[in-house]
Amino acid sequence: MDILITGAAGMIGRKLTSALSASGQLRGEPIGTVHLVDVVEPASVPDGWTTEVADLSEPGVVDALAARHADVVFHLAGVVSGEAEADFDKGMRVNLDGTRLLFEALRHAPGQPRVVFTSSIAVFGAPFPDPIPDDFHLTPLTSYGTEKMIGEALLADFSRREFFDGVGIRLPTISVRPGAPNAAASGFFSGIIREPLNGQRAVLPVSRDVRHSHASPRTAVRYLLHAAELDSSLLGARRNLTMPGVSVTVGEQLEALERVAGAEAVALVDEAADATIAGIVAGWPTRFATPRAESLGFTADDSYDDIIRAYVEDDLDASS
Amino acid sequence: MDILITGAAGMIGRKLTSALSASGQLRGEPIGTVHLVDVVEPASVPDGWTTEVADLSEPGVVDALAARHADVVFHLAGVVSGEAEADFDKGMRVNLDGTRLLFEALRHAPGQPRVVFTSSIAVFGAPFPDPIPDDFHLTPLTSYGTEKMIGEALLADFSRREFFDGVGIRLPTISVRPGAPNAAASGFFSGIIREPLNGQRAVLPVSRDVRHSHASPRTAVRYLLHAAELDSSLLGARRNLTMPGVSVTVGEQLEALERVAGAEAVALVDEAADATIAGIVAGWPTRFATPRAESLGFTADDSYDDIIRAYVEDDLDASS
Repeated sequence: MDILITGAAGMIGRKLTSALSASGQLRGEPIGTVHLVDVVEPASVPDGWTTEVADLSEPGVVDALAARHADVVFHLAGVVSGEAEADFDKGMRVNLDGTRLLFEALRHAPGQPRVVFTSSIAVFGAPFPDPIPDDFHLTPLTSYGTEKMIGEALLADFSRREFFDGVGIRLPTISVRPGAPNAAASGFFSGIIREPLNGQRAVLPVSRDVRHSHASPRTAVRYLLHAAELDSSLLGARRNLTMPGVSVTVGEQLEALERVAGAEAVALVDEAADATIAGIVAGWPTRFATPRAESLGFTADDSYDDIIRAYVEDDLDASS
Repeated sequence: MDILITGAAGMIGRKLTSALSASGQLRGEPIGTVHLVDVVEPASVPDGWTTEVADLSEPGVVDALAARHADVVFHLAGVVSGEAEADFDKGMRVNLDGTRLLFEALRHAPGQPRVVFTSSIAVFGAPFPDPIPDDFHLTPLTSYGTEKMIGEALLADFSRREFFDGVGIRLPTISVRPGAPNAAASGFFSGIIREPLNGQRAVLPVSRDVRHSHASPRTAVRYLLHAAELDSSLLGARRNLTMPGVSVTVGEQLEALERVAGAEAVALVDEAADATIAGIVAGWPTRFATPRAESLGFTADDSYDDIIRAYVEDDLDASS
């Protein structure tokens, strides 16, 4: 079982790496070679695994990757939403061209690897029904979402033509994200939990009735592994799936925080309305109905309480 | 009012050219320069209009086109469905790269032209609800449909970013297509009307209860002109629209033929079941609900009878 991971140095990539290293197997087969690619060197690398600092859109990179004949390719690499919006050309080059070049290189290599592609709920754009059904159209409102939509379309057609065996998973917002606060408009969804758990104050810039859909990093990794292992014949031609999430209001997030960490944790959250952030967040999806993914065995975190406990167990010591 | 038409030598391109030449105006402004591009020379060209034989995916072509600073660009060019399926690389090069290169060139030229992009109901793939609503997801089952889906995604994002002002229209099956029979699996939808009207026998390879959605060439041109003229601020970020069609069964097509041309015309149709064609057609959409396009002023042919009469008035003399 040889594995290739692009975007391996990112938060999800690092957690996927740890999970694979811990289990030592995928699809019931012992893991052989693992090659980790990113534009920066991964912070920690299991013994015997190889790494490469490379941009998929640079000449020759994808051909060398495809020549490794991995059985499973986790394609996580990409420029994030804010950067793809600020630098259109870079987003298109990395997210669209990089993905297409990788897919083309895999097409021309022997074999039909399983290709797990991380898409995003950014493929959806308001206005929405509530909940958003599995067959709702994709009308992204960012270039990042557009690039993910195009990646999904290519993944499905390359799979239909049996160039490879692709599964695309649309990840909900990942919370609680470990590490330092960031400037993303969605950052507060994690910050209002993470900062209090670390004894620090946090700002809540939206009202408590704002609803959003979440998955823990631990569950995102479960989704990736399940996408690598599931029987893709069950997918037919529809290769892209919205992943289940835990849909809660910000108020419900704070109630969960109180249950897990007490009222003193919640007291560290300062409500300070920010009209700009509230406006951005108002255009985001709030709730999905995901019977298709669920019928295929993708299961969400049990509750937002569990999402907080996953952070406490997996990340709190490391970040405090 | 300067106009650029790609794919100008195709059936729809020729009819659009004739309609523009006849009216002499677009958006209430007199037509100035018109430049017609295709991989083959158009059969007939109005006086003073310029033509160019070129492939948009060849180096330099799109930059020279964008430098013309057309006010309205009709982007009709593309490899058809069967060819895009048979030659994957050619389809991707012409339909995806050609479209993206044209859009990029228009982005970098001054101004924000209206860009009318002909998409197709091939962006949809079975299974379907009946009717297919405006917000149904795109799951194409051909590379052609995939390429059109990607063109739609780019059109929407380039419009959102105000690189240009795009409107994408998903055309239903065009019938009655003028000219000789062709080998397309959908050819019989036109053939069972066109051949009898020309005194020739036609083969019906599917059962009479097969349902499909149609627009006359005349109506397709009306859609293109309306897409060039409508107030695009009404579209918001959702720039791609399923066009209304007349949804009828093959039996209803033949009843209309009898009303327009008599029982002797229908007697020229030979029923000869073809399981291959029936299988292909079974995966196609049959009926759309298109309230969005209708509310924006796109109106279907009144009936299949009218579709036949449009052929008789516009094309019968020319083809017989």
